[in-house]
Amino acid sequence: MTATADEQGEDIAAEDAVPELESGLEEEIVLAIEAGNLGGVRDLVAQLHYADVADLLEHLDADGRDTLIEAFQGVLDPDVFSELDESVRDDLVEKLGVAYVASVVSEMDTDDAVQVIEELEEHEQKQILDAIPVGDRTLIEEGLAYPEDSAGRLMQREVMTVPEFWNVGETIDFLRQQADAEEAGEDSGSLPDLFYDIFVVDPSHKPVGSVALSRLLRSRRPVPITDIMSSEMKLVQVADDQEDVAYLFGQRDLVSAPVVDAAGRLVGVITVDDVVDVIHEEHEEDIMRLGGVREDDLYEAVGDTTRARFSWLLLNLGTAILASVIIGFFQGTIEQIVALAVLMPIVASMGGNAGTQTLTVTVRALAMKDLTATNAMRVVGKEVLVGSINGVVFALLTGIVAWVWFDSQLLGLVIALAMIINMVIAGLAGTTIPLILERNGIDPAVASSVFLTTITDVVGFAAFLGLAAWILL
Amino acid sequence: MTATADEQGEDIAAEDAVPELESGLEEEIVLAIEAGNLGGVRDLVAQLHYADVADLLEHLDADGRDTLIEAFQGVLDPDVFSELDESVRDDLVEKLGVAYVASVVSEMDTDDAVQVIEELEEHEQKQILDAIPVGDRTLIEEGLAYPEDSAGRLMQREVMTVPEFWNVGETIDFLRQQADAEEAGEDSGSLPDLFYDIFVVDPSHKPVGSVALSRLLRSRRPVPITDIMSSEMKLVQVADDQEDVAYLFGQRDLVSAPVVDAAGRLVGVITVDDVVDVIHEEHEEDIMRLGGVREDDLYEAVGDTTRARFSWLLLNLGTAILASVIIGFFQGTIEQIVALAVLMPIVASMGGNAGTQTLTVTVRALAMKDLTATNAMRVVGKEVLVGSINGVVFALLTGIVAWVWFDSQLLGLVIALAMIINMVIAGLAGTTIPLILERNGIDPAVASSVFLTTITDVVGFAAFLGLAAWILL
Repeated sequence: MTATADEQGEDIAAEDAVPELESGLEEEIVLAIEAGNLGGVRDLVAQLHYADVADLLEHLDADGRDTLIEAFQGVLDPDVFSELDESVRDDLVEKLGVAYVASVVSEMDTDDAVQVIEELEEHEQKQILDAIPVGDRTLIEEGLAYPEDSAGRLMQREVMTVPEFWNVGETIDFLRQQADAEEAGEDSGSLPDLFYDIFVVDPSHKPVGSVALSRLLRSRRPVPITDIMSSEMKLVQVADDQEDVAYLFGQRDLVSAPVVDAAGRLVGVITVDDVVDVIHEEHEEDIMRLGGVREDDLYEAVGDTTRARFSWLLLNLGTAILASVIIGFFQGTIEQIVALAVLMPIVASMGGNAGTQTLTVTVRALAMKDLTATNAMRVVGKEVLVGSINGVVFALLTGIVAWVWFDSQLLGLVIALAMIINMVIAGLAGTTIPLILERNGIDPAVASSVFLTTITDVVGFAAFLGLAAWILL
Repeated sequence: MTATADEQGEDIAAEDAVPELESGLEEEIVLAIEAGNLGGVRDLVAQLHYADVADLLEHLDADGRDTLIEAFQGVLDPDVFSELDESVRDDLVEKLGVAYVASVVSEMDTDDAVQVIEELEEHEQKQILDAIPVGDRTLIEEGLAYPEDSAGRLMQREVMTVPEFWNVGETIDFLRQQADAEEAGEDSGSLPDLFYDIFVVDPSHKPVGSVALSRLLRSRRPVPITDIMSSEMKLVQVADDQEDVAYLFGQRDLVSAPVVDAAGRLVGVITVDDVVDVIHEEHEEDIMRLGGVREDDLYEAVGDTTRARFSWLLLNLGTAILASVIIGFFQGTIEQIVALAVLMPIVASMGGNAGTQTLTVTVRALAMKDLTATNAMRVVGKEVLVGSINGVVFALLTGIVAWVWFDSQLLGLVIALAMIINMVIAGLAGTTIPLILERNGIDPAVASSVFLTTITDVVGFAAFLGLAAWILL
């Protein structure tokens, strides 16, 4: 009998298991789409998790998306919709039509709905909001009224709160009644689908404590809720930046946090799943900006991508020309010793690479709040020292290469001295540029690298060619 | 009366509020440390959250840490210990001594203990494990036996499980009894401190479903647990890579996930707070590797940092010399037209920057699993097209600059042609290098940029100088 139960258990697990979007399955679906086999597409895609369907839609080209939507006769799971990348979602809003998108959005939690709508074009926003029933629309419009990237945009309005004078039993009974009411089709409205903490509020709706559900479940019915609540909770202000919220969750290992308005009243809750998205978003911003890309443009059209990357390249053209102007001052020197033209990129390139190492560590440390007034000077000093030591080592190596290659000890000496100068400057610039930008309210990731390479190029060429003109001629 | 309750509520909130480590407070503490005012340090630091104490210890230098530890007479909160950066923790293990660290580690959850111990030197690991009571030691040693960066290292061994035949009431009663037993000082052992899902297991301890606590709380006592469980859960294999686990949590908005062994039995649970740490760690790895740094070395000593960065710089010296060799082939050409030496860095630099943009988007897309066999060729094609369009635009700009500067239309033509060639190659290399590395099992973030700049430098110099030799001489 036990064996049968066991087997049954396995059957349940096997039947209900959701297949993953492994590359084999994805290939099969792509083949079915290309063959125009709508029934096959439907059968394969219907068994996927909504997040996998979203991934699949992102990987397909525009025609493939058309076929997939056709296979489902234009009806998409709202959850698929909220998981999509912004530019792919824009494409689908056009394909599916405003009325359908409005109906999808009304079914979402307020935080998801706000996040879908905020990314659409303004005229689409208006059309969709007009098509949403007034109750939902008001909540969504309130969410959109908070500043972009603020806690207010991120939070869910539905919060589970209890008054201070309740006990465990009353709290559980309330939850069960709410569930019954929902099942009976009455709109209770105030309870989120999933939650992890219960917030205790005073009569003016200010939060005084939180209770983790696992704590609530372990307590007996007569225990007062204030006995088991933790008042060591961190309140998020509705105007707080989402980056600070993400930092707080990571630092304190939170799963949810209460959001209060300017008067200190509880207005919403932020849950960790939204914070995980923010962390990915903030990291993406840092990595893209360090690489000279305004934002992730993988799914953007060619024209948009080209335009977005143009301004960064134009800025770099300016700095490259500046470096060329420096070289231009030494045309006479190069004419006499052409070996200088051969060797000069080495000094600039090593400075750029050493500076980028320092810059990366500094930008990251600023983003993670590891670099503060307390240790800033120590970090700058350390990086200059690291630059000096590596500068001396690479000065020796490069000096020997130049000496052997062009059979000139003095040329070796010139490149060695230039290398030390540029590596020290690289360490100094790699730390101070991001610190200065941060102090002036500019995101250090966005502009640091262009300043850095300008400095290491200019110093590299000027030091090498200048020393050559002075020592060799 | 209501007013009094309100005031009381506010008082509670105000009294229990944990002050944040704002820069003002941090400065005050640093001043007290520098003044050697141990009492003052103790008063200021004692009110901080443990995560803030960890941050503070990281920001201080070695002497400052000594003073802080002295102020607390060598007794640190175990939670502070588990929040510390690896190299700072190493420093503290030395300062506090093995016996004390062992006692701190025994008080932690298994997952935190494993994470503290795995980062220590081997001889320290052994000493500390030897000093831990045998029960805890076995669990920690089992955790350490799983491969590094695997789900097994990340998971917590304490899991809340129920058999399939229980109902809601039995589950709640069990939890309350366990809590009573713990309070009575009996070691129940199997229950985690905080949990978010309950896992339903069959007689062979294989998971068949999960129940979110908020769902459990909303259900009436006689409801069978199998009625409210979700069997759509994703099982994590004990050997799965932590990067894949983090992806899964982000994609499916999970708060906890069951971990099973090779036989499919439930052996642990991974919670989202550990996953948030992994996400930060993986992002850090990507951003550091793209910047040519092996790992975040902000808190490392000068010697370790210098050594760690050396190998990357040495590799770059090799590629810089390779580029110089290419230039060396054209010494004769440069001797005749010295303007070539002035202009040649522009072509190489623009290729490098355009390639880095493409590379950044591609590496990030691979890390986020946005780039698959389905869209790889499309992405490569798009980037080549973007490179061609920007190549033509910048060819025009640079061509005009060269023409005006050196009053030579042909020189303008040469640099324009070289620019187009290098920008197209940059788009092609920026996408295909990471794809090829990934397909060969090499982390695309770690080596892509050195290959890329080698290619854009070599192609840039060769195309420009080669075309010049052909057209201008």
